Amino acid sequence: ILFVILCVLLLSCTCALSCFITSVQLFESESSTYTYLLADSETKDAVLIDPVLETIDRDLKLIQELGLNLKVAVNTHCHADHITSTGLMKKRLVGLKSAISKFSGASADILLSEGDQITFGKHYLTVRETPGHTDGCVALVLKDQSMVFTGDALLIRGCGRTDFQQGCAEKLYNSVHQKIFTLPEQCLVYPAHDYLGQMVSTVGEERKFNPRLTKNLDEFVNIMNNLNLPKPKKIGISVPANLVCGVHQV
Amino acid sequence: ILFVILCVLLLSCTCALSCFITSVQLFESESSTYTYLLADSETKDAVLIDPVLETIDRDLKLIQELGLNLKVAVNTHCHADHITSTGLMKKRLVGLKSAISKFSGASADILLSEGDQITFGKHYLTVRETPGHTDGCVALVLKDQSMVFTGDALLIRGCGRTDFQQGCAEKLYNSVHQKIFTLPEQCLVYPAHDYLGQMVSTVGEERKFNPRLTKNLDEFVNIMNNLNLPKPKKIGISVPANLVCGVHQV
Repeated sequence: ILFVILCVLLLSCTCALSCFITSVQLFESESSTYTYLLADSETKDAVLIDPVLETIDRDLKLIQELGLNLKVAVNTHCHADHITSTGLMKKRLVGLKSAISKFSGASADILLSEGDQITFGKHYLTVRETPGHTDGCVALVLKDQSMVFTGDALLIRGCGRTDFQQGCAEKLYNSVHQKIFTLPEQCLVYPAHDYLGQMVSTVGEERKFNPRLTKNLDEFVNIMNNLNLPKPKKIGISVPANLVCGVHQV
Repeated sequence: ILFVILCVLLLSCTCALSCFITSVQLFESESSTYTYLLADSETKDAVLIDPVLETIDRDLKLIQELGLNLKVAVNTHCHADHITSTGLMKKRLVGLKSAISKFSGASADILLSEGDQITFGKHYLTVRETPGHTDGCVALVLKDQSMVFTGDALLIRGCGRTDFQQGCAEKLYNSVHQKIFTLPEQCLVYPAHDYLGQMVSTVGEERKFNPRLTKNLDEFVNIMNNLNLPKPKKIGISVPANLVCGVHQV
């Protein structure tokens, strides 16, 4: 009996060590966009989040060097500031599927809804719908809730703007509070952008220190309605291109 | 006996889970420098690697928000492309010690040698001397060898230049091969810079894919002696400032 118990314990430990995830954060400096590559270190199945057209060669080279089978390239929403590389990537990688929220208005192989799972090897990301920056925004939560990819809904000490593309400050506030701030305190927050050289935060940190989302709903709406930001330079070409996975540019 | 063994196993698991390290990578975009903040999640003792003068307020704010006791601010070498914030940070944080290699020629509270340990809570970084980019370059290895902070000795798919500040291609080649490539394959490589939006690599990846350091010594020296790079814009002010922890600027 002792031997069996020890074997089971050792096996669990071995699994905890071997069921590793390879996770790589990458940056595109023109649009300050973060791209994330996640892979099952054993099976090599991988998923790519928010890849950018300008850095497709860098990303494909890394995927090839790491020997990964990229299964899904997912956009957290229809971006207004850069063109996605998912369309072009599909032309270069046989079998790759694109994915985006069914509420984005964009075409893709997989249209995502609340609770859907994006699987890579023994791991998966669960979709949480987080409308507010756009109607078709999603956050992607790793199965053990150790990481969340928040797109433009929640940024580090900030959040996405709500003044175009179906933006709605009230919706965004509720999305972040109901879908992201309910995750464990230690859950790592990986946003789609950062403009100050910050790369990662935690749900606990943002719950405490986010200067906008720690306010009440009325104050938040007031802040968001008075940002007076200039329109993104590339919105005119990015949105139409992203509605077709970026392939209108290719 | 069974009970004792189970208790020991459970305790080890609990410790493995509770002895967490908080590790944050930060970026300074003008010099493309990575700063790293490491902390013992329990005791909150922390160490900061390669902080930059321009981002001192961001870094101090984060340290304060996370409730950390910053013990040591260490430079991996005397930088030529930016001014360190360690000097100014010492004026703002009582008890903070600065550290740099004893071969850097720079002044600091702690002059580091091969094998020295920089302790934060239950964790520590071990110094490995890696001359070549400069005489006073060090790599800092986390105690479990899961991470190495390589400074400018090893960059992602690249390495630091060797054409000024005591630079020597042969020394650099030997440093990387003897002090970094001997670490475990899965050890995460965190460099002092990246110019292509790459943030992390592994020893295994660099051993296989580094376009310079996979060559033999003669080929490497030849590559390094023919880079014909322009001098860093800030070398004239950075090096003298960094020799005194950046405080000549303050």
